[in-house]
Amino acid sequence: MMNTTFVTPHDAGAKAHTLTEALPYIRNYRGETVVVKIGGAALDDARLAEIVAEDLALLNFVGIRLVLVHGGGPQVSRAIAELGVESRFVGGLRVTDDVSMEVVRRVLVGSINADLVTRLTRAGVRAVGLAGSDGGLLRAERIVGPAGEELGRVGRIDAVDDDLVTSLLGAGYTPVIASVAPAVDGTPLNINADAVAGAVAAAVDAVKLVYLTNVSGLYRDFGMQDTVVPELQVDELRALIPSLSDGMRPKAFSAVEALDAGVNKVHVLDGRVEHALLLEIFTDEGIGTQVLP
Amino acid sequence: MMNTTFVTPHDAGAKAHTLTEALPYIRNYRGETVVVKIGGAALDDARLAEIVAEDLALLNFVGIRLVLVHGGGPQVSRAIAELGVESRFVGGLRVTDDVSMEVVRRVLVGSINADLVTRLTRAGVRAVGLAGSDGGLLRAERIVGPAGEELGRVGRIDAVDDDLVTSLLGAGYTPVIASVAPAVDGTPLNINADAVAGAVAAAVDAVKLVYLTNVSGLYRDFGMQDTVVPELQVDELRALIPSLSDGMRPKAFSAVEALDAGVNKVHVLDGRVEHALLLEIFTDEGIGTQVLP
Amino acid sequence: MMNTTFVTPHDAGAKAHTLTEALPYIRNYRGETVVVKIGGAALDDARLAEIVAEDLALLNFVGIRLVLVHGGGPQVSRAIAELGVESRFVGGLRVTDDVSMEVVRRVLVGSINADLVTRLTRAGVRAVGLAGSDGGLLRAERIVGPAGEELGRVGRIDAVDDDLVTSLLGAGYTPVIASVAPAVDGTPLNINADAVAGAVAAAVDAVKLVYLTNVSGLYRDFGMQDTVVPELQVDELRALIPSLSDGMRPKAFSAVEALDAGVNKVHVLDGRVEHALLLEIFTDEGIGTQVLP
Amino acid sequence: MMNTTFVTPHDAGAKAHTLTEALPYIRNYRGETVVVKIGGAALDDARLAEIVAEDLALLNFVGIRLVLVHGGGPQVSRAIAELGVESRFVGGLRVTDDVSMEVVRRVLVGSINADLVTRLTRAGVRAVGLAGSDGGLLRAERIVGPAGEELGRVGRIDAVDDDLVTSLLGAGYTPVIASVAPAVDGTPLNINADAVAGAVAAAVDAVKLVYLTNVSGLYRDFGMQDTVVPELQVDELRALIPSLSDGMRPKAFSAVEALDAGVNKVHVLDGRVEHALLLEIFTDEGIGTQVLP
Amino acid sequence: MMNTTFVTPHDAGAKAHTLTEALPYIRNYRGETVVVKIGGAALDDARLAEIVAEDLALLNFVGIRLVLVHGGGPQVSRAIAELGVESRFVGGLRVTDDVSMEVVRRVLVGSINADLVTRLTRAGVRAVGLAGSDGGLLRAERIVGPAGEELGRVGRIDAVDDDLVTSLLGAGYTPVIASVAPAVDGTPLNINADAVAGAVAAAVDAVKLVYLTNVSGLYRDFGMQDTVVPELQVDELRALIPSLSDGMRPKAFSAVEALDAGVNKVHVLDGRVEHALLLEIFTDEGIGTQVLP
Amino acid sequence: MMNTTFVTPHDAGAKAHTLTEALPYIRNYRGETVVVKIGGAALDDARLAEIVAEDLALLNFVGIRLVLVHGGGPQVSRAIAELGVESRFVGGLRVTDDVSMEVVRRVLVGSINADLVTRLTRAGVRAVGLAGSDGGLLRAERIVGPAGEELGRVGRIDAVDDDLVTSLLGAGYTPVIASVAPAVDGTPLNINADAVAGAVAAAVDAVKLVYLTNVSGLYRDFGMQDTVVPELQVDELRALIPSLSDGMRPKAFSAVEALDAGVNKVHVLDGRVEHALLLEIFTDEGIGTQVLP
Repeated sequence: MMNTTFVTPHDAGAKAHTLTEALPYIRNYRGETVVVKIGGAALDDARLAEIVAEDLALLNFVGIRLVLVHGGGPQVSRAIAELGVESRFVGGLRVTDDVSMEVVRRVLVGSINADLVTRLTRAGVRAVGLAGSDGGLLRAERIVGPAGEELGRVGRIDAVDDDLVTSLLGAGYTPVIASVAPAVDGTPLNINADAVAGAVAAAVDAVKLVYLTNVSGLYRDFGMQDTVVPELQVDELRALIPSLSDGMRPKAFSAVEALDAGVNKVHVLDGRVEHALLLEIFTDEGIGTQVLP
Repeated sequence: MMNTTFVTPHDAGAKAHTLTEALPYIRNYRGETVVVKIGGAALDDARLAEIVAEDLALLNFVGIRLVLVHGGGPQVSRAIAELGVESRFVGGLRVTDDVSMEVVRRVLVGSINADLVTRLTRAGVRAVGLAGSDGGLLRAERIVGPAGEELGRVGRIDAVDDDLVTSLLGAGYTPVIASVAPAVDGTPLNINADAVAGAVAAAVDAVKLVYLTNVSGLYRDFGMQDTVVPELQVDELRALIPSLSDGMRPKAFSAVEALDAGVNKVHVLDGRVEHALLLEIFTDEGIGTQVLP
Repeated sequence: MMNTTFVTPHDAGAKAHTLTEALPYIRNYRGETVVVKIGGAALDDARLAEIVAEDLALLNFVGIRLVLVHGGGPQVSRAIAELGVESRFVGGLRVTDDVSMEVVRRVLVGSINADLVTRLTRAGVRAVGLAGSDGGLLRAERIVGPAGEELGRVGRIDAVDDDLVTSLLGAGYTPVIASVAPAVDGTPLNINADAVAGAVAAAVDAVKLVYLTNVSGLYRDFGMQDTVVPELQVDELRALIPSLSDGMRPKAFSAVEALDAGVNKVHVLDGRVEHALLLEIFTDEGIGTQVLP
Repeated sequence: MMNTTFVTPHDAGAKAHTLTEALPYIRNYRGETVVVKIGGAALDDARLAEIVAEDLALLNFVGIRLVLVHGGGPQVSRAIAELGVESRFVGGLRVTDDVSMEVVRRVLVGSINADLVTRLTRAGVRAVGLAGSDGGLLRAERIVGPAGEELGRVGRIDAVDDDLVTSLLGAGYTPVIASVAPAVDGTPLNINADAVAGAVAAAVDAVKLVYLTNVSGLYRDFGMQDTVVPELQVDELRALIPSLSDGMRPKAFSAVEALDAGVNKVHVLDGRVEHALLLEIFTDEGIGTQVLP
Repeated sequence: MMNTTFVTPHDAGAKAHTLTEALPYIRNYRGETVVVKIGGAALDDARLAEIVAEDLALLNFVGIRLVLVHGGGPQVSRAIAELGVESRFVGGLRVTDDVSMEVVRRVLVGSINADLVTRLTRAGVRAVGLAGSDGGLLRAERIVGPAGEELGRVGRIDAVDDDLVTSLLGAGYTPVIASVAPAVDGTPLNINADAVAGAVAAAVDAVKLVYLTNVSGLYRDFGMQDTVVPELQVDELRALIPSLSDGMRPKAFSAVEALDAGVNKVHVLDGRVEHALLLEIFTDEGIGTQVLP
Repeated sequence: MMNTTFVTPHDAGAKAHTLTEALPYIRNYRGETVVVKIGGAALDDARLAEIVAEDLALLNFVGIRLVLVHGGGPQVSRAIAELGVESRFVGGLRVTDDVSMEVVRRVLVGSINADLVTRLTRAGVRAVGLAGSDGGLLRAERIVGPAGEELGRVGRIDAVDDDLVTSLLGAGYTPVIASVAPAVDGTPLNINADAVAGAVAAAVDAVKLVYLTNVSGLYRDFGMQDTVVPELQVDELRALIPSLSDGMRPKAFSAVEALDAGVNKVHVLDGRVEHALLLEIFTDEGIGTQVLP
């Protein structure tokens, strides 16, 4: 008796199914704060970056309060190389002399942050770029390498004042934070962006902290890339930290700290999968690794 | 290089596509008020009613302010028949003596409205059932038939006070309105639910008024059910009214009034198509008929 | 020296005296919430119902936040009798099969509640009719009779969510609650209205719960109607419960529960005395029985 | 069948009747601002003053926003006489030299205003005494007598800034204003209290301005005190002004100005009638004279 | 290379230095409440009074919430003398019969308070004069002299209700409080203004209480006026009280009470030094005596 | 009779005089918005930059809402030179190829803006760095040189959305804006900072726009630097524009536009004079040039 021809029943049904599958997730995350660390693919690859911006816009439009954090290692390395200087790392941390630090903040704040803000704006998000110095958001202190090596202008987060972020979220803006922060004397320091994301997630009572990475997730056996662990307890992750690679260790360490500080869940997602964010948050698909408190 | 197996790329891509297709619609309707007249199938068929409740919940969760209006013709006819009385209609309007009126409001307010509220509540909507007498929402006046026939307790909307509806929407509730309204002396009158929907949509500055019906849409040639008109200007609809069937005429008339009063768009949807509401509002599919001002 | 003739001094003096006698009571109750269970006479007798509506309007206008609760036993019995079914009671509770339950809610919500709302509206009160399902106000669970008898769709209040009531009071509306409430699966159950009044009074922190009844008050010796007790402590009432009649027991039981939950005073008033509410609240006259915590 | 003995039916009925008669008046005046000029009897006679304070408290408790204005002619005359100075009047205005002005404001602000505030406080009103200089409420300018006589420190209202009064009313306080006001250079001037009442009533959009006087009302024929006019149009009053006595003229003039500025009604009441305010506002009794725009 | 001639470098530099010296003090006091007891010179000498008003305006404009308290001993004595009555003191307290009390409040409330309000208004402060009876601000109780002497209408502060003061401060007004307060039965009592200042400072959580006096500060050895103590601990002051003069004792006693109640600092300043207030609060100069908790 | 030695009367008097001289200016500017374009000396010379930050903090602390705008020509030129590229200017505008644009925004946003924010933060201002892309603040469009020369990534302001700036000001933050802005397609463009300052001042209804420059003011005869004009009408300035130097022309042009758009006054101050801002705003000294509408 159905006499309409303008709907391809199968296709419409699939669409409707997806929309309704998203319902309980939308209900749960509405009004909550989610911190997303954007790294790797989403910063390097224009097409993926475009999709991530769209996904973030969708999350935003259904009422999720987003805080974005980014670093920009490869771009910084390229800019430093252009000056004829060689990047040097100790324990995964870039040794940062004064000249390099100037490059770091110019690239992170002047280029990457501004590009991300523009991309998000064009997707309909009212994004506002921030560095750690804005509104006294972050205060850092210098650190040395694992064996006491001098690292120059490298620091770790000492304190987070979430007033500005909270005020912007309350006014409907989406803060986009670059991973530089001033020491107590005002000197800018280079901070690991994963650590910034963890500290900010803890400070704003985020329900979820997502690391959008270049890997498929966390691996049980780190030599074998086909053993992504779908779910992990925080204590299991804590135990794994010593065996992790340099790139993965700050992520894991910050995840543990954020979970200890009350964040409900940490996700390590593969930024190379299109719409990984959307699928992770709004569908029943299991993507990457989730770490529970 | 993609080494994950837990996502069926095709399926995930389709899901992601649907979610992103919904994006601009979500953006446009967020914070706006949509009035939905629920009739026919959505009240008669438990499974469809369930789906409609879920769809409304989804619309609500993405920030659309919903106002629902319902009648309940067939159920009233059954209840009157149970009393051994025969239903009589003049020009599509039920002739309503005092005993019938008591049945009308008991069925509409006591059964149908309460069932709809319960269904919506279970889907996560904070629904509140209203009759026209609540908070002075509606005031009606008696009418006679097209040829001056005595219709008894039948009326039309004389005035709408949207304070209660606006206050409930502002507090996060979804009003569900039964189509009975008091005359100035307090006597309850039986009102055409399509007309109530139109009057309320005009009063609350709705961006959209949706009639969820038992037909596929409006037909250009009303003898031929395979010629659903996808889009119509209000003036074309005005011209069509005389040729419409008794059941379609109040809908068309109220649609014209609502559009004249500033409602942006009126939709006649087929409530028998699963998730018709969701597909109409959140996808590019064309469903039923839309009437533009 | 007084040279005006337009005031009958005696009459004016008496009027002024009454207005000033009301002063300290108005001061004390201003802004407080009073729950009134309306029963018996006030629902059966149009003239008394009119006066009660006026009294409630007066209470409302001097700043008392009112919540009204009603049942409708006799009207339900009549409607069930019209269907040729015999009402059956166990321990004062109506045995309620599915057909009866449909009658119960149609009569309570569709007729009595709507009539009360209309009457109050005409007296100037911005009344809004509610059933237990509206805004998730009440959740009920099924009960059995005192000897384990199957009672069908009869329940007791399991939880009260006062958000909707508080929101309506805050917006200047007067909620009027019918004594039906959904079980956790959405099935509507028939609840004793006295119990609803007690549970709501406790939930909204009422300063006073008034039972407007068909009797002169509580009697010390329940065979002798001329021994109304003007005042009682909650523990005295608790001790009396076993000896009470079926009709009085739920009232007494709910009164005890409300007082235990923090309500300051419970009143049992004779609804057949004109303006009993007004005289009790605004004058020094002692009317009916008051129970203190 | 009524078996209670604790209510004298006749008395209770009369009380209830008075309370219900007050209902529509309470409804109309709730939330509105009424300015009362308190003069004569209400300031001179402790018992009447007590009753006026109670009446004002009652008006306040049912939601009327009150602004009180007072002068204090006789008390000022006594205080001046105590200094051995003779009071001199020109056209009803006290000729006020610098020494007299000091007496005027000490008596009005230091004694009469403070006593009135204390009396109102004890009746339950949160009264706050004000002079024209407080919060820049009033600004005055010097005037001369009708024939150009030098009057010394006598002025008329030049401007009213209602911010402080509005702010106090909004915070639940009742302003009590003494009729002194600074000139633009800060010099305090003696102002006719009737004129202050009229100017303030116009500035705060009062619905009613009441003059509580020592006379029964306005008389058609001013030699004959038994011809009080119950009602007058503003234009009739305007025409009467030239023929009025010195004491009545400023009242009439201010009444005309207030009505022209949008005040809905001006009343001239006999302050010697107990509870005149209450009876006028809350009952159907006609008391004194009302002037309509 | 500087080619402008319109700035006298030295002078401009000094100005700029003063403005920047004020900076950290402005930062610290912004939004805080400071209570200033205005006495002696600032009330007696028109030129000093003018300067004090300007200083208070400046404090107010940079965001300090001011509450002013004043007495008026000399003026009261003069007014009483004019009546041919001799002022009598016991332990620094004026013996106050009923006639004197009338003079006290007329002079304090009617003259001194109103003059101070006018002066402040002209300096740009939105001042509002208050007596203890306004808004129930102060409640007092009678006291007797140190040896049980009858003092008549003399009292001490029993309770402070800071609602009105807080409400006025919140609306941008500056309360100016005269030191009279009603007993529980409404009788006005004469209160030591230093004690009022201390009690109000404690009630409004003032950060600072300043006594603007006729002396250079507190002296270590009270016979020798050249030994002003720049700073004192509250316990040192407590120990000094018995040895203090009658005029200084209430000040010291109230200072101790205010500090015990949480006020951060009490200052005794010389009101005869021009701009003493400004210099004390906004510069590094040490003026008078400060007492620390 | 003055017996204190701790105040050098002369010095204290001068301080007090300066503070009171500032009073009427503080009163007038309180709560108003002032836009300051920071250029030249204040960005190049660390000591002057420190003083400017202190001055801005002082302005901020007395209630002035500040919006800061900066460019950074010399620093950009140095950074470009480091890349071995030569800066080229057409009509005072830097010809900006894509590589140069990247340098421009890195230096302006990543270095200069962040340094200014840090400096202000350390002076007690809650500064937040912004680029034109943040919150959609600025939208620009490409321009060509006066003779149609291709300028590359150089633009002018097309639209200002002051929501973010207003929201930050309302929350107590001080926006610091770098002069880069996205074209409609998101491409960042290099904008003259003087023009940004003018457009923002117009959009936020600033009462004053201050250009802090490297010159003493505007000169009547631009060859002779000793003829600074203290005051100019907007029409006089309009007439002067053609004769101005390349560096001064955009300033003059923007000043005219800002005045036409409702800004009350534009100032050209010499940033090399210490505390020029403070002296200009808070003292009677005339500094630099003011342009009136």
